[in-house]
Amino acid sequence: MRVEIINTGTELLLGRVTNTHLEFIARSLLGLGLRVERQVTVPDGVAIAEALEEAMARADLILVTGGLGPTSDDITRDAAAEAFGKKLIFHREILDGIAAKFARRKIQMNDMQRPQAMVPEGGTYFENHNGTAPGLTVENDKTVAVLLPGPPRELRPMWADQVLPWLRTKFADRLSPFHEITLRILGVGETRVQMLVEDEVKALGPIEVGYCARSGEVDLRLIASEEKLVAKAADLARAKLGEAVYAEGIETMEQVVVRLARAAGKTVATAESCTGGMVASRITNVPHSSEMFRYGWVTYANEAKITELGVPPSLLEKHGAVSAEVAQAMAEGALRGSHADVAVSVTGIAGPTGGTPEKPVGLVYFALATKTTKTQTLERNLSPTREIFRPMATQIALDLVRRALV
Amino acid sequence: MRVEIINTGTELLLGRVTNTHLEFIARSLLGLGLRVERQVTVPDGVAIAEALEEAMARADLILVTGGLGPTSDDITRDAAAEAFGKKLIFHREILDGIAAKFARRKIQMNDMQRPQAMVPEGGTYFENHNGTAPGLTVENDKTVAVLLPGPPRELRPMWADQVLPWLRTKFADRLSPFHEITLRILGVGETRVQMLVEDEVKALGPIEVGYCARSGEVDLRLIASEEKLVAKAADLARAKLGEAVYAEGIETMEQVVVRLARAAGKTVATAESCTGGMVASRITNVPHSSEMFRYGWVTYANEAKITELGVPPSLLEKHGAVSAEVAQAMAEGALRGSHADVAVSVTGIAGPTGGTPEKPVGLVYFALATKTTKTQTLERNLSPTREIFRPMATQIALDLVRRALV
Repeated sequence: MRVEIINTGTELLLGRVTNTHLEFIARSLLGLGLRVERQVTVPDGVAIAEALEEAMARADLILVTGGLGPTSDDITRDAAAEAFGKKLIFHREILDGIAAKFARRKIQMNDMQRPQAMVPEGGTYFENHNGTAPGLTVENDKTVAVLLPGPPRELRPMWADQVLPWLRTKFADRLSPFHEITLRILGVGETRVQMLVEDEVKALGPIEVGYCARSGEVDLRLIASEEKLVAKAADLARAKLGEAVYAEGIETMEQVVVRLARAAGKTVATAESCTGGMVASRITNVPHSSEMFRYGWVTYANEAKITELGVPPSLLEKHGAVSAEVAQAMAEGALRGSHADVAVSVTGIAGPTGGTPEKPVGLVYFALATKTTKTQTLERNLSPTREIFRPMATQIALDLVRRALV
Repeated sequence: MRVEIINTGTELLLGRVTNTHLEFIARSLLGLGLRVERQVTVPDGVAIAEALEEAMARADLILVTGGLGPTSDDITRDAAAEAFGKKLIFHREILDGIAAKFARRKIQMNDMQRPQAMVPEGGTYFENHNGTAPGLTVENDKTVAVLLPGPPRELRPMWADQVLPWLRTKFADRLSPFHEITLRILGVGETRVQMLVEDEVKALGPIEVGYCARSGEVDLRLIASEEKLVAKAADLARAKLGEAVYAEGIETMEQVVVRLARAAGKTVATAESCTGGMVASRITNVPHSSEMFRYGWVTYANEAKITELGVPPSLLEKHGAVSAEVAQAMAEGALRGSHADVAVSVTGIAGPTGGTPEKPVGLVYFALATKTTKTQTLERNLSPTREIFRPMATQIALDLVRRALV
């Protein structure tokens, strides 16, 4: 069964917005055993109809995002109805629902909302609990298209609550799951991973091995139709790679940290300079992180390191803010101030300015303090590009916490 | 001149990685007056050659990302050479360069690196200063393709330093710039923006008006071939929308905040509960933010609010942590502790748990304290979805700071 995605929206092709729909939908479809074979982004306009016609020639299921709203550039509904040769039928109950939403917010509904109540003949619709435009389906003998609203906050709940169950029923007799395990690896290079793993994994049986490298990390992807084979391959890879494997599947580093800390009943505190709150923000992005995270400091200025974390001024004078000594004092200060079980600190030079020949942009020190062990420090030279440096430094800080919690 | 992008990588279609290439490349090409007309994502494999052939039939310039590395699933180089009917030529100097990089890191280079030294006949290559695989060009009479490495940390500097200047020269006689202004609006709905602005803007002359709504925000996009017309339209829209316009173009809210604070010589401090460091992290993501940001607190636990920000325990008992009173005490505590000119606080219920009928998930309080004005508080009911709630709350907190700095 072939699945394609069409993302519509001039703003995507102008680079105004990151397209996160592919990522979200593809992950979700994997659970049905469906892989997205192609994704295309087209601007608002005639290109939508063209892309639909091309996809209809190949695909069984087409997921279209965007262009369902009330403004003049929203033409996906019309383009899809035309491509499938279906009339649009007015559904009074949809317009009534939109009117009720406006009424609740004490705003007068205007006529521009009306096109959102049109549904292609023979199709169904999905209510939009976070906006006005409903999702729609339109189909012919060969292909089903599902039209979804563009804003993620509208699309995502609609997808999870309504579209996914509908797809499950609609294609019940055509879903043939396959099995996939992705191991997420920090600190071992891409070719090194391949050399350690690929030959032995492939000797196990028919299995697809893929690699995805990014910012100091590698994802190792194992796919096969047999579940046991994938599990065996993953075990083998884990044995070869050891603690460098920080997660499996879509679990993120911060999710691992929160999970391990909660399971161990331990709390974590953060003391950040160059990452400026990104470590805390990543941790607190995880639901239930309040059980294991209570205190974080963003001590961007030297003065803040002194007054908030008790870093001795003499240490700052002697070694500079970017030093193993100050990192250690920051982590220990955070541990004292928070009564946490584990505290991590980061201090470095994110750039673009502030570098010297001895301490270039990209240099960073970490420290990990716990109630029971000697404080550990780590020096790394990361990318001199600020937008790469900060996430990498954040990831390494989280990894130190993870290793302390394993 | 027609431009298309092909992103290769099975991991993109499995939803493992967010595709940020389109956004990055599209923004950059706008500076040359080029718009991306279509973007497609295909898996590693034969689909790459198919996508290339389709794009070659339409496009003058094709930008291909990914699949240039040393592992077995990297086949873009071969696919492109074949699609364009070009042989691959071995370039010793490329392999020597890769060997030198390995030597610097004291690692023995393996044979798997060799394919990265192959360049399509008649094409040029771009050095990779952050990885091993160089960028490549391949062309025929009609179409030029540029092949770029997949990891953003490799692609982005290569693009800025080498590819963009090369494109400027290559297509010097075919670039016909157009003018675009995007106004970024917080706090006014999409149809309301259209009603306030569209008719009068369109009466000014031939101008394209577009809207992009997301999480409580709208981007209003104005495009025309005449620069004066776009400027006039933007002035008109600004007059209609007032302070709700927080930025123009690709400037983010945090960039505006850092710019305004630096210009005014003012410093900003943050006291965050539910946003967990995201406000500080967004501010410190901006270069030179250290001039205006010195202190931030992530007081996730009540105890942290008391010990770090001096929030009176009685206030927490009486009103609860999620209240205007506690938000006010947090902001005022941050102002005192940091000696900053402006302090902002956020306290709310990000969910999924912790909500009550009186204080549901999504409820959030903000406070803004300054040295010279009465502390201002704000109550909002945002999305109950954590991953939508936190960025929205962060954006509103930053907007409060922006309005205080204007």
